[in-house]
Amino acid sequence: MKTKEQLPACPVATTVSLIGSKWKLLIIRNLVERAWRFNELQKAIEGISQKVLTTSLKELESDGIIYRKDYQTNPPKVEYGLTELGLHLKKLLDTMADFGTYYKSQI
Amino acid sequence: MKTKEQLPACPVATTVSLIGSKWKLLIIRNLVERAWRFNELQKAIEGISQKVLTTSLKELESDGIIYRKDYQTNPPKVEYGLTELGLHLKKLLDTMADFGTYYKSQI
Repeated sequence: MKTKEQLPACPVATTVSLIGSKWKLLIIRNLVERAWRFNELQKAIEGISQKVLTTSLKELESDGIIYRKDYQTNPPKVEYGLTELGLHLKKLLDTMADFGTYYKSQI
Repeated sequence: MKTKEQLPACPVATTVSLIGSKWKLLIIRNLVERAWRFNELQKAIEGISQKVLTTSLKELESDGIIYRKDYQTNPPKVEYGLTELGLHLKKLLDTMADFGTYYKSQI
């Protein structure tokens, strides 16, 4: 996790530094609903590569936005979900959905 | 401007396709306040290259989020600002600022 000093002074830029990529936004869109497994996410997010999904999940985990839960079973079962901190992104995702709906109604 | 059919069915993915990049989000953060000139934006948005700024502004204009106003003066004066449609992003930027502030308070 970054320290306050490593984050931009601007709060918008802080959020951008945490989730400001196409793929992270789409991953969080899915995780807002429930915990997902890696392969499920890869299938659901059209066009995402295994490498980008892996990197994005690692960064989101390192930033405290998502958790990774390994059930220690065989075959392995690993799930990703939003942490308490990450759950605070729900309002942002709702606002994004509202804008997308509004935009489509205007074109 | 894209047609409804060219946009993703998911409203979040629609918003992501319009503004889901680090640089576009930072550009809009500035334009929410007032109209900006190209050079001003380049100075204010640390690390953005002239090429990325040009491309991002062109795409945002083409998608109807921002306008480009050429005052037809010599020396040239060109300003960029949010359209009526783009002004509806204010709530999204406010929510991003709220999350950034909250995140910093938690780390």
